Formats: sequence, C-alpha cells, structure tokens
Amino acid sequence: MNDLPPVSGADVLHARLTVVDGLIVSDFNRAIFQDMRRGGITAANCTCCIWEGFTGTMRNIMQWKQWFRDNDDLILQVHSTADIRRAKAEGKTGIILGWQNITGIEDQIGYLSLFKDLGVGIIQMAYNTQNLVATGCYESRDGGLSDFGHEVVAEMNRLGILCDLSHVGAQSSRDVILASRQPVAYSHCLPAGLKAHPRNKTDEELRFIIDHGGFVGVTMFTPFLARGTNATVDDYVDAMEYVINLCGEERVGYGTDFTQGHGQKFFDWISHDKGYARRLTDLGTIKNPAGLDSIGHTSALTAAMQRRNWPEARIERVMGENWIALLAEVWRG
Amino acid sequence: MNDLPPVSGADVLHARLTVVDGLIVSDFNRAIFQDMRRGGITAANCTCCIWEGFTGTMRNIMQWKQWFRDNDDLILQVHSTADIRRAKAEGKTGIILGWQNITGIEDQIGYLSLFKDLGVGIIQMAYNTQNLVATGCYESRDGGLSDFGHEVVAEMNRLGILCDLSHVGAQSSRDVILASRQPVAYSHCLPAGLKAHPRNKTDEELRFIIDHGGFVGVTMFTPFLARGTNATVDDYVDAMEYVINLCGEERVGYGTDFTQGHGQKFFDWISHDKGYARRLTDLGTIKNPAGLDSIGHTSALTAAMQRRNWPEARIERVMGENWIALLAEVWRG
Repeated sequence: MNDLPPVSGADVLHARLTVVDGLIVSDFNRAIFQDMRRGGITAANCTCCIWEGFTGTMRNIMQWKQWFRDNDDLILQVHSTADIRRAKAEGKTGIILGWQNITGIEDQIGYLSLFKDLGVGIIQMAYNTQNLVATGCYESRDGGLSDFGHEVVAEMNRLGILCDLSHVGAQSSRDVILASRQPVAYSHCLPAGLKAHPRNKTDEELRFIIDHGGFVGVTMFTPFLARGTNATVDDYVDAMEYVINLCGEERVGYGTDFTQGHGQKFFDWISHDKGYARRLTDLGTIKNPAGLDSIGHTSALTAAMQRRNWPEARIERVMGENWIALLAEVWRG
Repeated sequence: MNDLPPVSGADVLHARLTVVDGLIVSDFNRAIFQDMRRGGITAANCTCCIWEGFTGTMRNIMQWKQWFRDNDDLILQVHSTADIRRAKAEGKTGIILGWQNITGIEDQIGYLSLFKDLGVGIIQMAYNTQNLVATGCYESRDGGLSDFGHEVVAEMNRLGILCDLSHVGAQSSRDVILASRQPVAYSHCLPAGLKAHPRNKTDEELRFIIDHGGFVGVTMFTPFLARGTNATVDDYVDAMEYVINLCGEERVGYGTDFTQGHGQKFFDWISHDKGYARRLTDLGTIKNPAGLDSIGHTSALTAAMQRRNWPEARIERVMGENWIALLAEVWRG
C-alpha cells in the first residue's frame, strides 16, 4: 500500500517532499489512511474534538489509539517533529491529534497536561462560537479572550501546545496573539482580501499574526474562495500566493480542511452551535477545488505550484517544512 | 420546632409576615432548616449550583430531594407561589432551588426543561466569570450575552425560570435585561452609590433593571457594605432604603446571601474561578451585620424596618410580598 504511486503529476518532486497538511477533519478509517499514503501526506493535524466535552474527546482519542494499533503499516502517532521525520523515512503518515475547540478540557486547566501526554499538539481556542476561553468567528459579537482564557494560553505555552485561531473571532484572535509567549497559528484560513466572509482573515489580521511570530495555513474550503464551488486547485494556489505576498514565504503552510467521507449529518453538526443549537452558517454544497478531489490527490497541489513556477525551495516550505519549523518551536522538539 | 419563638423583637409583626429571602447559600442540613423556622422564613432561594456541571448539580438536587423527605416537618419544595402560601399556612419553609451559575446545563439548552421540572426556578446567568452564556462581574472585560445566551434566555422565558443577574457583569446584565421577555432580577446586590465594588450596582444599573420591569433584592454581605464588618442590621436597612428611593418600593426585596455553616474551604472555592483557578477576590473576614448573626435572627430585619418607621405595607412588600409577585409573574403561578 505504501508503494502506491501518487495519482497526479509532479510526482517526482512531490514524492520527495515532506508534506504536512495543517487540517484534516475527515471521517477517519483505514480507507482514509490509505488515501493519505496515496496523497503522499507525511503528517496531518487530524481533528479529534469539535463540540465534544471531556468524555467525548477521550473516547475519540481512545478510538485513535485503536487505529494506531490496527493501521501501523500506514500511520503512526506524532508527539514531536522527530516523529514526522520518522514517518517520512518509514513511508507512513504521522497523525498529529488536534482540536478545533477547547471544549475537551471542559472547565479544567489541569486536563491540558493529560491531553498533551496523549498526543494533542494543536488546540483551537474556540470553534465558531463562545466557549469558556474565547469567542468564535460566527458570533454576532466577540468579547475577546476571557480571564480564564489567559490562564489557558499560559498553560498551553508551558506544555507546548500550539494555539490555533482559524475559527476564532477577530478580537479573541488578537488577544491570544498578544497573550501567547509562543507563536500561534491560523492553521486553515483564507484571505478576506479575495472574498469577504466571517471565516476569512483580513490583510491586517494576517499581517498581525505574522508580525507577532505567528503562522498562516491556507485552506481550500470552496465556500470561502472567491469562485466558490467553481474553484480549482489553481485558485487554491492563487490564495496561497496572495497570503505569501502579504506574509512572506517562511511562515505560510497549507491546511486543506478535507472532510472526506462525511455526509450531511456531519455538516449539520458542525454548522450548528454545539452541534444542535442555532444554525451558524449554511455551508451549501461541499465540493473540493477541481483537481483536489481527495486526500489522495494532494500531489496536484505540488503540480499547481510548479505550474506557477514557484521555486522548489518555496514549494518545500509551503508543503511542509514551514509547518515543521513552527511545531518544533512550539513543541520544543 | 415550628413553634419556636423568634429570637429578637418585632415578633408579632414578623410572625405575621410572609418572609422570602432571595438568596441563601448556607451549608444546608437539618440545623439550618431549624434555624430557618426560628427566623420565620416562609421561603428562600437556596443555591444548588455554583461551579458544578450537569452531574454535580443533579447530585446536589438528589441530596435536596432526600432532605425534603427527611425534614418534611420543617421544609417543603416550592414549584409555584401557591407552595409558598402553603408553606406559610403549614408553618414550614418553602425551598426554591436556585442556581448561581448556569454551568449546570453544560452545553445543553434542553437540560433547562429537566431542571425546571425538578424545581429549579431561578438561574443566575453567570457567576463572577465568563461561561457559555454570559460574563461575570469579576472579569476584566465583559463581551455581553453570547448568541447561545440569547437562545438560553428565550428558553428560560418559555419555561418560566427567573434570570438572576447579581454576579453578572454590567454589559451581560444589560443584554439579558433587554433580551428577556419576562422580568429579571438582581436577587442579591448592593448599591455602588454606597460603596464602589465590582459586585455592587450603580444607580444607572438599578434604574435600568427597574425601568424594564425587573427587580432588585438587596443583600447584606458586609464586604460590599460601606462600613464593612462594622455594619449592623441598620446599615443593611439603610442600603434597602437607598435602593427604594431609587427604584420605588414595589420591585425591591431582600436576599441575604447567608453562608451559614460554611468554612474557609467553601470561601476559597467560591472566590476562585471554577472553584480552583485564579483568585477573583479576597472576601476577607466573613461576618454578618451585627444583629443578623444567623438565619434564625431574621426578625431583627423587621425590627430594624420598624425602627426606621417604615409603614407596615412597605415592610410586608420588602420582606416577601414583592418577591412573590415577581415569581408569580415569571413562573406564571
């Protein structure tokens, strides 16, 4: 299985790259792990908490531990960037457990150290709405980082857990960027300069996180791209170039937001507050950019970068090396 | 036990009154229930959730149900104002289960209807800090009622659960007052006009809630009174008179905040966010106003009102009838 060829062009370069996807939220199972190998994914930030509380998140991680045992020919768990290098060497995909919402700790700061031990390396401070820590980007107002949130950021800094702000509101994001002693990230976002949308980040916001040592992962989610469901992989690379022109090429990566395998029930769940309350947004038709139909097609991204005549050094960085440098800094290893 | 005489003066009038204490958070047990009878308390809003989540709150209510069975010579559970009248008639104290924090529902709006069935008639929207709904009065910032909070207020309105704002921040309080289709209350607060304190309410805030059909219960907690631990029951009545001069006498009641029986562990728990995180305030020495040393001395309050030559009609109102009118409106019975 590990020897399956990539399905699209730029194969030689893509096969050589260390590829890090900053956000995958697929309906994980062995078929997805096989597709990750097909796509040449060295490591990915895989979501294991969105609306869940402590017990639900622990169950999700329990499931992951079982997947690690049952699929050790395809995947391995990432605790440090050395594990990402090892995944590359062994032809496997490294799984970074990540949260899109900090609800997994409920009201207990002390749970953070347990989850860090269990391999949770990236935590988003809020998902779309207000929680105990911060406020998400779909709320009508954002009161900023709570006082408890300041304590949480300090503890995440101490433990070495990356603060993710992709779905966080503008004021809360700004507060986290200023409060954190470590770099923080938008792991998967798009520029509002190309399309105005509550989930997209303005030029000022993108500059602000970069100016404070942070990081921007560019997502491909078509509802947030100017051409919507007509977008292709080239539009996705256009968006990356827009961000690079603004932020430089050293702190930019990619984070697809692949939702592969999920049906309507999942999209209803993520687009309602807490999974069931008021509707926050209508995601419309979920369709990946043409050419990037599945995780297995990730080499199409490298090919599109080559078509734009990006130098190999930039492609290496954006496809993974920048993510690894950031994680090494936050994880201290 | 029900025939024990009140321990201080004004006995005849006090014994006739229907007495409603808007907030008691004592270390409940049979001795407290006996003291409630000694104090001539017809009904009280008794706290059964501060930092607890769903399970912790259910356990507290389970304990209350046991207390109702074991102490049915002293107390009865209040679901409607008819139960308060019945308590008076039977010489018992009616227990209104109330929350000082809405954490008991965790992230489930649907839990509200369960708790209403179980007798929870009053819920404070936040306790000192930010939760999913609102922000408390000890936070450095208050972003106001969350969008989820708007849904929660609507559901509490539908069910007939009183929104309490005593420990809620200024912006969140304002938002709840405007969002609620039913009157809301500060069940236990003091005027900032007599002492500036994060827990005290400005003249403007007191007027604002009243102008929107709301209610103010005046508390006796000495750290929030101008004379602090030197305060007497007369200072407490002074504070009530200040509020009445501002708000009129028809929408003002009393809510002592008796913490009877609790030790340092409890005060540490309530003065740290979530019971264990950063310290929010130093409550200092906990000492009731002289003359009001215990719930059993509540008739001293009636006596102090008489010393100030309040007409009996005003004493009746402030000691309980106003609370009953408010609850009848919100509970629709």
